[in-house]
Amino acid sequence: MAVFTDQPEQSLAALGEVRLIKLIGEWLGPVSPESPEGMGDDCAVHPPAKGRQELLTTDSLTYGQHFDGTLGAADAGAKLIKRNLSDIAAMGGAPGPALLNLLSGPNLSVRWLEDFVRGVSETSAKYGVTIVGGDVSALGAGQFSAVLTLTGTVEDPLLRTGASEGDTIYVTGTLGGSILKKHYAFEPRLDEGRWLHARGNCTAAMDLTDGLAKDLPELVPNGNAAWLDLTAIPISDDAKQLGDDPLARAFCDGEDYELLFTVSDSMDADAFEAAWAGQFPETPLSKIGRVGSKKTEAALVDAATGEALPWTHGFEHLKPA
Amino acid sequence: MAVFTDQPEQSLAALGEVRLIKLIGEWLGPVSPESPEGMGDDCAVHPPAKGRQELLTTDSLTYGQHFDGTLGAADAGAKLIKRNLSDIAAMGGAPGPALLNLLSGPNLSVRWLEDFVRGVSETSAKYGVTIVGGDVSALGAGQFSAVLTLTGTVEDPLLRTGASEGDTIYVTGTLGGSILKKHYAFEPRLDEGRWLHARGNCTAAMDLTDGLAKDLPELVPNGNAAWLDLTAIPISDDAKQLGDDPLARAFCDGEDYELLFTVSDSMDADAFEAAWAGQFPETPLSKIGRVGSKKTEAALVDAATGEALPWTHGFEHLKPA
Repeated sequence: MAVFTDQPEQSLAALGEVRLIKLIGEWLGPVSPESPEGMGDDCAVHPPAKGRQELLTTDSLTYGQHFDGTLGAADAGAKLIKRNLSDIAAMGGAPGPALLNLLSGPNLSVRWLEDFVRGVSETSAKYGVTIVGGDVSALGAGQFSAVLTLTGTVEDPLLRTGASEGDTIYVTGTLGGSILKKHYAFEPRLDEGRWLHARGNCTAAMDLTDGLAKDLPELVPNGNAAWLDLTAIPISDDAKQLGDDPLARAFCDGEDYELLFTVSDSMDADAFEAAWAGQFPETPLSKIGRVGSKKTEAALVDAATGEALPWTHGFEHLKPA
Repeated sequence: MAVFTDQPEQSLAALGEVRLIKLIGEWLGPVSPESPEGMGDDCAVHPPAKGRQELLTTDSLTYGQHFDGTLGAADAGAKLIKRNLSDIAAMGGAPGPALLNLLSGPNLSVRWLEDFVRGVSETSAKYGVTIVGGDVSALGAGQFSAVLTLTGTVEDPLLRTGASEGDTIYVTGTLGGSILKKHYAFEPRLDEGRWLHARGNCTAAMDLTDGLAKDLPELVPNGNAAWLDLTAIPISDDAKQLGDDPLARAFCDGEDYELLFTVSDSMDADAFEAAWAGQFPETPLSKIGRVGSKKTEAALVDAATGEALPWTHGFEHLKPA
């Protein structure tokens, strides 16, 4: 279905704001609680998180940047929720209420928007997220962006800071080539993140959104480098199928939405990997290197040669839509 | 200063995402805490609100809709924060951490953006808000929108539902003509909201953003109507100066950002108004009517004649930008 329409009577402009907000509530269905817990008052109200820390994260989904007309509307809506869930997963947290902002040109197709919001709703229900408020705003013709802000809770979250020399570096799933399908057809690693958090060996964690080359340096302390076993990088079949340079794709393609984390040197790696395989038989786990000493400015080093890796950039969010 | 630039080297596109995010942190200055409380990890982490309820609200500020090139960049940034604070005020709450999303065309002027973010920062500092995370995303050339999601806390919030027949209807400040100045030069009624909340006589409250004609029906129970004393409506000097029909402007112009609330019939109105005047000598308070019986479908009635008021619409958010 086309995102925009040249039939004025099928467009957002014909609908008007009051009717739109009412419809959004209907399309969201069971994940849209009654006021004051949900939409309808000046703010949404929710009970305090007893004895836990609150998490706050936000991510947007913009037409022309994060999806185009080849992606189904419901898949686009699902992607918006899952992008944010991936951030909660990377803290070892559990998701809570969310707010949805829609910014759109007047020629947006109302039928497309309905499918988009139904995609938001189905995925929210699957992961226990409620949509408790939001906002609509007008952009120029042909523009559409949706912003989701997601809350969560956790005790003592998994942070990006915390790794130290000697720690082992792991990554879940396979990397690269997400443009073919995975950029929307991924599962946020919520169960894996909570399991890691509960187990207590994880020293630092993040979700991989901009590619290993750009993201991994975030986990490595300033005075250290990541020494990587290039033969252990889990290259996805899609990265191989794209042909050009699959290993470079595993490092530089964005939108893997996998967990990247370090575990303490003192941990029994074999027992950890066996426990993982028993718990998550469908989620590959790869030991890709360790936090070592820093010889040059490079944050990422080929452990076999001691040379800096050639890939230093990742996904760039500010390319024109 | 122009919002967009035709000098590519002064544009957002020339800056790139990593540098932009670093600069935003610098521009925000003291209201941007260190990670994990602030930017830098997958989520921001904040302590639970002990024994209080959490509030969540979001509002956007879009070029061409909520401001144009005649408004200073810092004033636009301040407006974004204050719009959200007004929602927290209407619940009787205190503001907490916030998230900032920027969506922008590649030709946005970096100098304009710096002033915008500095406006966000100064106003955040004034009201004790911290900016703990956010997101940047690309729109088409000439487009700019900023989304703020604000948290807050309160015990037993002031809701929109709760008014009943006989309750007195009050409004703060003066109404209409906000397009001349007030749409950005307002103070969110946070102190007034918290005072009302603490006093305990308030049965329902909301902030006036879309005009009395559109907003007041939200406070009136379905089986009732608001019987209004049209001579008591506090028409602003700006609405009068605009000339055409000042009373219609007081009802239909948006962006008053005043508190509209009902108080219990059993309350001593004279004592209440005297206490208000002592507490908030600079904030006018007008008793504009009461919740009465419903004679027709109309939610708003002229108490002098019993006739339905002619104004039934307010500010429309989906007009093309």
